[in-house]
Amino acid sequence: MVEQIEGGVTAPQGFEAAGVSCGIKRSGLDLALLVARPPARAAGIFTTNLAVAAPVVVTREHLARSGGTAAAVVVNSGCANACTGARGLEVARAMAADTAALVGCPPEQVLVSSTGVIGAPLDGEKIRNGLTLAGKTLGREGHTAAAEAIMTTDPWSKEAAVEVDSPAGRFRIGGMAKGAGMIEPNMATMLAFLTTDVAAEPDLLHRALTTAAASTFNAITVDGETSTNDMVLLLAGGAAGVRLDDALYPRFVEALHAVCHSLALAIVRGGEGASKLVTINVTGARSEAEAARAARAMANSPLVKTAIHGEDPNWGRLIAVAGRAGVGFDPTRARVFVGPVELYGHEVVHADREPAAADHLKASEVSITVDLGTGESGSATIWTCDFSAEYVHINADYRT
Amino acid sequence: MVEQIEGGVTAPQGFEAAGVSCGIKRSGLDLALLVARPPARAAGIFTTNLAVAAPVVVTREHLARSGGTAAAVVVNSGCANACTGARGLEVARAMAADTAALVGCPPEQVLVSSTGVIGAPLDGEKIRNGLTLAGKTLGREGHTAAAEAIMTTDPWSKEAAVEVDSPAGRFRIGGMAKGAGMIEPNMATMLAFLTTDVAAEPDLLHRALTTAAASTFNAITVDGETSTNDMVLLLAGGAAGVRLDDALYPRFVEALHAVCHSLALAIVRGGEGASKLVTINVTGARSEAEAARAARAMANSPLVKTAIHGEDPNWGRLIAVAGRAGVGFDPTRARVFVGPVELYGHEVVHADREPAAADHLKASEVSITVDLGTGESGSATIWTCDFSAEYVHINADYRT
Repeated sequence: MVEQIEGGVTAPQGFEAAGVSCGIKRSGLDLALLVARPPARAAGIFTTNLAVAAPVVVTREHLARSGGTAAAVVVNSGCANACTGARGLEVARAMAADTAALVGCPPEQVLVSSTGVIGAPLDGEKIRNGLTLAGKTLGREGHTAAAEAIMTTDPWSKEAAVEVDSPAGRFRIGGMAKGAGMIEPNMATMLAFLTTDVAAEPDLLHRALTTAAASTFNAITVDGETSTNDMVLLLAGGAAGVRLDDALYPRFVEALHAVCHSLALAIVRGGEGASKLVTINVTGARSEAEAARAARAMANSPLVKTAIHGEDPNWGRLIAVAGRAGVGFDPTRARVFVGPVELYGHEVVHADREPAAADHLKASEVSITVDLGTGESGSATIWTCDFSAEYVHINADYRT
Repeated sequence: MVEQIEGGVTAPQGFEAAGVSCGIKRSGLDLALLVARPPARAAGIFTTNLAVAAPVVVTREHLARSGGTAAAVVVNSGCANACTGARGLEVARAMAADTAALVGCPPEQVLVSSTGVIGAPLDGEKIRNGLTLAGKTLGREGHTAAAEAIMTTDPWSKEAAVEVDSPAGRFRIGGMAKGAGMIEPNMATMLAFLTTDVAAEPDLLHRALTTAAASTFNAITVDGETSTNDMVLLLAGGAAGVRLDDALYPRFVEALHAVCHSLALAIVRGGEGASKLVTINVTGARSEAEAARAARAMANSPLVKTAIHGEDPNWGRLIAVAGRAGVGFDPTRARVFVGPVELYGHEVVHADREPAAADHLKASEVSITVDLGTGESGSATIWTCDFSAEYVHINADYRT
């Protein structure tokens, strides 16, 4: 049984966290530290963007050099340390070295992550001072502050944790994430840090993480962008005395999926300017991949997202997007549902049902289903948010 | 010499136009009629959307049946007659038949076009009454009213005309267009109606139209959408006594390009909620196609478009989009210019130049240039507009 519990990255035994203010952001917490005692086994998935930020480069290097071992994760917000050249790499390495000195581990056992403005230089001195402060407040209670310290334009922090009672024993998985902008389902899409007290090898951890991310972090979109800093890390400490083997694997993935699902949907709910969580289901596609492609096109369409924001069941825009998505689509057999209400199907318009559909769109969680009408059974679900004037305000004034 | 002149679709001899109100829109002109006397040779390019509106189906049929001959074009705004099934096709055919009766030509010599809300039924009775009115006001002065009658959310009407003094003789090309929403460079992308008093065969007209559209109507984007009703028609009447042959072809395409360029940029300037015309140049790509792909990704990025709206030279977002565009890209050799100001190049950030770049972005016409740094010479230009809260308001409240 997978049971939701309170807490975040320190819910599993063997992890401590801290979140402090070091002056990179104008105000608020901006440096998070996560420490695994003893060092954990670790796996990560990273941005598919060709412009890779310095911390992503360093974290990949460290995972390779340490053979997938991590004693600490250090994350700053307010500055992405991306497009910062050789100097940016130096700062990212110094960030790891300073953390290593604090924690007492080799530098390659420190994983580094940054989020915020691209192209601005990251001040290593501020990070160093912040780390000293973080070392003093580190503890199992620190998960809340850590989750706050990784936020940028997020309206609230995002944490999740589960406890699982398996035949092999009881274990926990916890996590925190940040989202808000530059969110699109293409590998990692944002920052998330996951912990577990299961003991596991990095290869199996990586497989579990990739599987769980596919239908969670990689199935959400806010604005169709993929950032230079996307990163999801999973650390397995082993304090629960339960080993991840083939027998436990399905149960572990199920629990990991639950935590990722919760964090992913929290990212969409907290999307920049979002007022609604929108579930987009596509059915009747020639394949799962084509269904996902059509669903993503709808989930990123400004016309669809503004109509949902206006609580207008403008199904014609969904048909128009399906028609331009480059997937198999038969408009004469297609069907469009807003919530449970079929508004269009087999070339018949049900205009009398629009009030019922508009009612559905008044809720804070809404759903859209489009059957592409190919007669095949490919289907996919993507989560997105509506598109508001607030999104424009946030992103027009982001750096001012 | 290609000289810009006043006027629109009736600037060339042999064409008359009218624009009237027939009650499809709540207020304003909503029915345009263009008549060629004698009937013209005609060519068209159409939406690539798989959900094709009834008027597009009928116009294609008529061009095929008439062998590329058109005596009239009838266009309504306020209702797209799309996703309207068999009944929609009947109404589109009736619209052609009623126009044919008015003008005195076979129905297949009438081309039909519609724009507006998808899925709403088109009232053929209103069209019929409007046509009677249009017949009474038809004339060379009618081009202004016709250009107004094809508007939906456009803030102003769009007309252009040129006169050319060629070795073969003097000729004119005129045109009108509508845009505003669902604008993306994928075939036609909007409605445009072009006329010329040159005499030409449909095949050559089609070739000239496709060539001119490639770098004009197909190189603009407002919101990345492609509508169900996109259509560009070119009618050649022949009244100028100049024949389009291989010798005249380059000059004719140049003149046609000038009219299409003017109308295309007017569509972007009048994009929903737009306050700036943005020219996006991509250089240093592995091919022209990859350059265009990267430029389109930037031109449709909500983060790029909102930054420009906020007059913020946030070049990091351009690098991030280049990195996710799926084209060849070397971030260590890439360069980003806002107007003439290089803000980033070869991993060096020129933060001191940001005020100059911000000044450039205060203008109503701005440019962005990104060199992808591959060392190859592929380049492309795409025109787009900024993304404002007004876009959201327009599209959240479109049907209410």
